[in-house]
Formats: sequence, C-alpha cells, structure tokens
Amino acid sequence: MDTQVGVAVRRWCAPLLGLPAHVPAAEYAARRLAMRNEDVARVLLPAARLAHLLVDTGYRGGELTSPEALGALAGAPARTILRLESLAEEVAVSGVSAAGFATAFGDALQARLGGIAGTKSVIAYRVGLDFDPGEPTAAAVEAAAGRWLSGIASGGRARLVDPVVLRFVLWQGVATGLPLQVHTGFGDTDLDLHRSDPSLLTSFLRVTAGRCPVVLLHTYPYQRQAGYLAQMFEHVAMDVGLAVSFTGARASHDIGESLELAPFTKVLFSSDGWGLPELHLLGSWLFRRGLARVMGAWVDSGDWSMADAERAVGLIASGNAERIYGPVG
Amino acid sequence: MDTQVGVAVRRWCAPLLGLPAHVPAAEYAARRLAMRNEDVARVLLPAARLAHLLVDTGYRGGELTSPEALGALAGAPARTILRLESLAEEVAVSGVSAAGFATAFGDALQARLGGIAGTKSVIAYRVGLDFDPGEPTAAAVEAAAGRWLSGIASGGRARLVDPVVLRFVLWQGVATGLPLQVHTGFGDTDLDLHRSDPSLLTSFLRVTAGRCPVVLLHTYPYQRQAGYLAQMFEHVAMDVGLAVSFTGARASHDIGESLELAPFTKVLFSSDGWGLPELHLLGSWLFRRGLARVMGAWVDSGDWSMADAERAVGLIASGNAERIYGPVG
Amino acid sequence: MDTQVGVAVRRWCAPLLGLPAHVPAAEYAARRLAMRNEDVARVLLPAARLAHLLVDTGYRGGELTSPEALGALAGAPARTILRLESLAEEVAVSGVSAAGFATAFGDALQARLGGIAGTKSVIAYRVGLDFDPGEPTAAAVEAAAGRWLSGIASGGRARLVDPVVLRFVLWQGVATGLPLQVHTGFGDTDLDLHRSDPSLLTSFLRVTAGRCPVVLLHTYPYQRQAGYLAQMFEHVAMDVGLAVSFTGARASHDIGESLELAPFTKVLFSSDGWGLPELHLLGSWLFRRGLARVMGAWVDSGDWSMADAERAVGLIASGNAERIYGPVG
Repeated sequence: MDTQVGVAVRRWCAPLLGLPAHVPAAEYAARRLAMRNEDVARVLLPAARLAHLLVDTGYRGGELTSPEALGALAGAPARTILRLESLAEEVAVSGVSAAGFATAFGDALQARLGGIAGTKSVIAYRVGLDFDPGEPTAAAVEAAAGRWLSGIASGGRARLVDPVVLRFVLWQGVATGLPLQVHTGFGDTDLDLHRSDPSLLTSFLRVTAGRCPVVLLHTYPYQRQAGYLAQMFEHVAMDVGLAVSFTGARASHDIGESLELAPFTKVLFSSDGWGLPELHLLGSWLFRRGLARVMGAWVDSGDWSMADAERAVGLIASGNAERIYGPVG
Repeated sequence: MDTQVGVAVRRWCAPLLGLPAHVPAAEYAARRLAMRNEDVARVLLPAARLAHLLVDTGYRGGELTSPEALGALAGAPARTILRLESLAEEVAVSGVSAAGFATAFGDALQARLGGIAGTKSVIAYRVGLDFDPGEPTAAAVEAAAGRWLSGIASGGRARLVDPVVLRFVLWQGVATGLPLQVHTGFGDTDLDLHRSDPSLLTSFLRVTAGRCPVVLLHTYPYQRQAGYLAQMFEHVAMDVGLAVSFTGARASHDIGESLELAPFTKVLFSSDGWGLPELHLLGSWLFRRGLARVMGAWVDSGDWSMADAERAVGLIASGNAERIYGPVG
Repeated sequence: MDTQVGVAVRRWCAPLLGLPAHVPAAEYAARRLAMRNEDVARVLLPAARLAHLLVDTGYRGGELTSPEALGALAGAPARTILRLESLAEEVAVSGVSAAGFATAFGDALQARLGGIAGTKSVIAYRVGLDFDPGEPTAAAVEAAAGRWLSGIASGGRARLVDPVVLRFVLWQGVATGLPLQVHTGFGDTDLDLHRSDPSLLTSFLRVTAGRCPVVLLHTYPYQRQAGYLAQMFEHVAMDVGLAVSFTGARASHDIGESLELAPFTKVLFSSDGWGLPELHLLGSWLFRRGLARVMGAWVDSGDWSMADAERAVGLIASGNAERIYGPVG
C-alpha cells in the first residue's frame, strides 16, 4: 500500500465502499476482506462509467471473470482481445507436430476471429522489442516449433520464448488485419525495461504499414517515444494505460507527455484494469482527472479553445477506439 | 491538423492572417489557400521578430526560398549552414573517381567556407549516432567511396549511407573549426529514434574536444541527455528547436527539461522552421512563451532573481548564438 | 556559475555567508575566497540539518575532510561507505600476486566490515551497467587480475577497468549482505550516460534478490526507470541525489518523477555532497523544498491526505535509510 496506487485506492475507492477518503490501509483491507469480490465489483465497475470494454483474456484468464460477466458488472458491452502467445501455447500442448504447428495455429486463430476485436502480443516480455522485424520462413518456423515442442514433450514449460515462433504468431496477427496491440514499457519482473522501449519497434512498424492498426500499450516511461511513432506512422496508435493507475497523483504528468507529438486521433484511453475491481475504477477516474487537468491548463492559458479540448477528449475517451476497433457488432 | 502544431497554427497564426484565434481548421486552410505563400511569409516572418537567421539549405533546398530571400522577408540578415552529406552527394554525382573523392570533397568544402556560418550533419538519419567515433583512414575512405560511386554508376541512389564516407565528411566538417550542428532526436520515418539519442555521441565528443563547437540540434525526447553533454563538454551546446513547434502547448515542458543541467551559456534558441512560414512564427513565439513561463515560475518562487532570468534569456535568445557562430560579417 | 547550481548557491548559500540572496557571482566568489573552507563548512553544514551522514570516501578521499570531521562539522554522526573499486586498487598496488588477489581483497574487505555502513560500486564509470551479471569463476578472476597487475607492474594506471575483476569485487560486496550502493545515471566525462541507465541492471537485480539491499544512486535522467526497479524488486531502493543540487530550481521535477512507481519505502534522501560545503546545504534544502512542493500539490488537490504526506516525507527523509542501513551503532 506504500505506493501511489495504494494511496489512490484509499482516496477514490474507499468512499464508494462506505469508508472515509484516505482511510488507513488496515481499515480499507478489513472492509475489503469482509466483502465478496463480486459485490466490490458491483459497486466499482459501474462507477468507472465505461461505455465499452476490450478485454485481454490471455493472462490467467481461467481464474478471472469472463469478458461477458465483466461487461455485465460494468453495464457495458465487452469484447475480447486475443493474446497470440497464449493461443500458440494452447496449440503447442494440443499434441500438434512441428510440421503441423503453423497450420494448426492458423486454424485456431481463424476459429477465433469472429469473436474478437483485435489481437495482442507480449513479445516484449519474451524476447524484447528489438527482434528481427521480418516474417520468418515456413522452414524456419517448422524447425523452431520442433525445438519448442520437443522441449515440452521432455517436460519443459509451454511458455513461448522462441524468437522465430514469436515472430510467426505476431505476423499471423498482422495478417488478420485486426488491430494488433503490442505491450511496450513497464510490466512484471520477467521484462527488461530497456528492451521494451517502443522505438525499438521502428523497423517492424515500417514493414507493417498499411497491413493492420498497431496499438502501443502502456508505453511508460517511453510515452514520448510512443507519441513520436504515432505521429510518424499512419497505422500506429498508443495509450498510457497501466501507468495511469500506478502513478496515481502523478498520472497527469504521464498523460501530458503522451499528448506532445501524438495526434489526438491516435491516443486512446485504457484502464489496463486486471484482477482487482479497484484497478478498473482508478484507470478510469485517474485518466479523466489527469486529462482534465492537462487540457484544462491549456484552455486556461489560452493555448487551446474549449471546443478543441472537448473534441480531443471525446476522441481520446472513445472516438478513436470506436474508429480503430469498430463499433460493437 | 489534429496535433499540437495544428492547434498552435490556428491559435497563433490565424489572427495574423485576419482570422479569429482557434478558427476551425477548414477555414484556416481556405484562407491559406487563397493567399500566395510569399504573402503569408510577408506577414508571419517579420512577426517572428528574428534578429538573425541561420539556414540549412541541404534538404530540398532547390525548392525553397533562398537564405537571402528568407532573410529579406524576415527583415534580418541570414547566413547559410552547409549540410555535409548534401555536399558529398553533389560531389559524388559530379563524375569524380574513388581515388579523387576525398580531395574533391575537401576542395568543394573549401570553396564554400567563405559563405557559411557552420556545417551540419544528418548522420543520425543515415546510420544512427552510435558510429565509430574516429576519423577513417584515407585508404578506407577511398574503398568506401569506390563502392558508393559504383552503386551510383549502376543506377543506385546518390543518398549517402556508407558509414565510412559519412564519418569522413563529418571529420572534414570538424576540421573547418566552424560550429558543427548534429541532428539528434526526432525527425522523419527514416530515423530510428533510439539511435538518435545524443548520449550515443559521447565518444565522438571526447575526441573532438577543442576542435570545433558541436551544437546538438532538436534533441527531443532526449533533451536531458543533451543538457548533460552540454554541461560535461566545453565545446558542446544544444537546442530544443523542432520540438517547440511540434509540441505546442506542451513546449514549456521540453524547454524546462533542457534547462536542468545545461549551462545557460550553452542553450540556443532555434525555430527549426522549414517550408511553411507558420513554423518560423511558431518556433519563435512558442519558444518565447515557453521560456517566459519556465523562468517566470522560478522568479515567482524566489529561486531566481529577475536579473539572472533576464541575463539567461538574452544569452539563450541570441547571445550564445552570436558567441558560437560569430557576429554577422 | 552559469548553471542551476550556480544560481542556487547565490540564492541559498549567500545569505548564510552574510550576503544578499542572488548576489552577483563575483561578489560571492570574493566572499568565499576571503573565508577559510572550514569556516564556510561551520556555517553551511549545520544549516543543512542532517541527522546522520553516510560518506563515500573512495574518490580523492585523502584530500577531503574525513567522515568523522565532516560529522563533527554537521553536528551529526557519520558513517563510511566503502567504495569497492578503490579498495581493489589499494590491494592491487600492495604487491599482491594474481593468485593471491582474490583472497587479499576478501581479507581487506573483511577488515573494513566493522567500520562501514555499506559498500558502493562505480562500475557504471568503468564498463557501464550492461555487464555480464553472474559471479565470475575463481580461475577467471585470477587470469584477469594477472593481466591487470602486469599492467600496473609495467607502469600502467592502477585504475580498475577490467570487467571480470569489477564483477568479482561487486559480488564480494553483495556477499557482505550490507547495502550495496550502485552509481547510476549522470556523472563525469568518463561515463557513457546511455550505459548508466539503471534498467540495464535488471539481470543483476534478478540474481541478487534476497542477498543484499541494492541502492541505485542518483539515477538522473533515468529516475523513472529506477522507480520501476524499486517497485519490481523487493531489495532495491533509489535516490535522486546529485541531480537535486545540479538541477536547482528544476529539482522538484526530478523528485516528482522519482515518486511515480517507487514505493515510498524505497526512496531515500541523498545530498551527494562532495567537496564544497555548498553542495551539502543545497542537497538538503533543495530536496526539502522540492519534496514539499511535489507532495504539497498532491495534498492541495485532495489526491493525498496530509497524514499520508507526512508519513512519506518521514520515510524518505530518514526512516528508509535507518531501516536499510541500520541505526547508528
């Protein structure tokens, strides 16, 4: 609790659970433990006032509320984002052969296309973003899949870390034409931060131009680099989700930096909420508060008109996502 | 127009063209298209209140207003900055042999020395700033020039991307003793942002100490790194041109970061105006506004005296450039 | 004097030496030269209001006031931080053999353990932070020490730059279990800034988890990267010392960035004062002022409660250091 997110939970979530703002951490924890998770979600999710949810189910999805149930709690439609590496791992443990892996993955992806709004890659966690940008050959994929599958057969982890297979599934995501989310910037301890700088993706962005929208997720502390890429490449957009909840009272600084070079048609709201209902609420409220603070200062100083600010807020809050991911089907 | 620079154009340039501040983009575009470019320049350039222009003619210079004509429009003397790679490309297509390239380049550079205020390198765009810092041998230059010239003879592009020839022309620039501008930080899509971090130049700065002033241009989003280099190396100065226009209402944040470590004797105003007259105006007005905001806050809080702020503003606005580039001849 | 630190000296130190705030630089210099260094220290050090000093004696320590004398001037207990590379250099010039180096270093370290509060590495200056993170083998250390000692015997500098020996002494520091300070971020001209990014230490931090506290020093301009590491790794803490004095009126920006991801239990005050008594005063006053400004804004906006801010200030100012380094013996 000795973090910005801890302070923000006690500040913003506590009153919604019937406690004073800034309640001591122990009291918050006591109240929280006395409530069922679903009851907490029933209070906090609607308060986040989300119009539409895009949910990545690829990380411990089996333990979590389904997108449909999450949407029902939030009172908004929810669509799924398919994590490419998780699908590859499902295929790998299904008994497929090295020669059959590529086709099996393609079939599995095809079977999911009707139900998803986009794909997502966590290649930043597996080999970093400074990977060879080209699509690997079929022979290279078969050989690499063979090594990976043999490892699994000998009792190794199914976790996909082979750079060739990772690039194969990434390019399969590109080929769908659906928006491709790429995790960049900070994350968990298995990530090397300096290898998650989105500017390392430049060569990959050059060769994917015109093929599918690419959405750079999180990006902290490289939000300025991401903004540069969003300005340079027509098909690139970005968000500062995750950083907003975790930097709490400082979120407006990160939001401000994301609004330097990036066109306002390329910056997206994201809560990156995961697991705790509190993260959905904070992702929304802190982003609203931070964006209002940043743009409000521009209007106050006369640099921006209120009309321009209102239009940009509308785009960032939902318009850009609707354009990129399409309206709810 | 959905960018900070688009908002800033409608905010600051529109009133000078007889339109309301924050005019809708379509109206601004209509007014702009109804005017001759030169008439727009006649309004916006004098309003930029420039005392002296330093103009790089190396990028599509033939399509642009000459430095002399630009200076006449702005009501200020203008001097030329010679782009080393462009001169090398002129020499390369002139029919020179590999053995004769180095001498021909040296002669061409010598012939231009009387008319220029400094040289400039865009090596960041060609191979990145993490190049071998030493001066290449004559034999290496001849061999590399031979490969480049053969390519051109076989119908290849004249664009100089050979790292050895790039280093040769860079060192020829150093040998003039004139200020050497080095593009760092953001630019166009042919640049890998992470390879344009000016701190990658550290080894080059160590070996050029005492030989010529080095001015790190633009530097965004690495303005703090550039400030560190300006503090560490006597011969290094910097600017945040380009970023100022393109980050608009956020420019003061970037200006502030450039004023952390860099001595005030090493930070230079730059508009990086190119092409559109609007960029000359915004480069000047947004820099004035941003610098006033940043230093004004220091004076308000008592951290700085007004006298110190006025002196630093004078140095940054023109004094440092006069010292580094010399007065108008 | 044309720097933030120069302005800050004239603003904050001048009144303590009987001069007006913002006195011209020449008058400050004249007053300073008319005083004995020790008399200046007698005024400025107590004014810094330090409760406890941790002093690295490894850089030109023989020319400087001893920790004990410094503590007496400041009116506070002082403990020593042992610079590992300096101890290795002492051992190397003592006549030890390659085969005996490792044992001799271990003995020398053991002999110092009773009198120190922690160890420190400046490996960032010597080979950068992107070193092989593992502990080298005894055979590799002996071979590397042999090359180093032969160089010294042939008249070479004793300065330790061999990556294997550097890693050996670093791991010896880890093995003490005492807090290990690692210089990261900016420093002098013999440092390549981009190789001092603390995120380059990620692999080293993974393998040292649970072995000793690691304190990332200075970290500028990578304070956000350091904050990320402090959040991710239980044994990692950080400071923004050095940057605070050198960025003067801008210090609050750097302090603010250090308080985004890092838990408040992992951020430490540091003056990084060295040599001039002014740096001890500025390190303290500018940090107090910057922290108050940053946290005060959070309290004013209602994001934080005053009680939370007061608790975090207490931790950052001294509580965290007491927990990590232990109380004065």
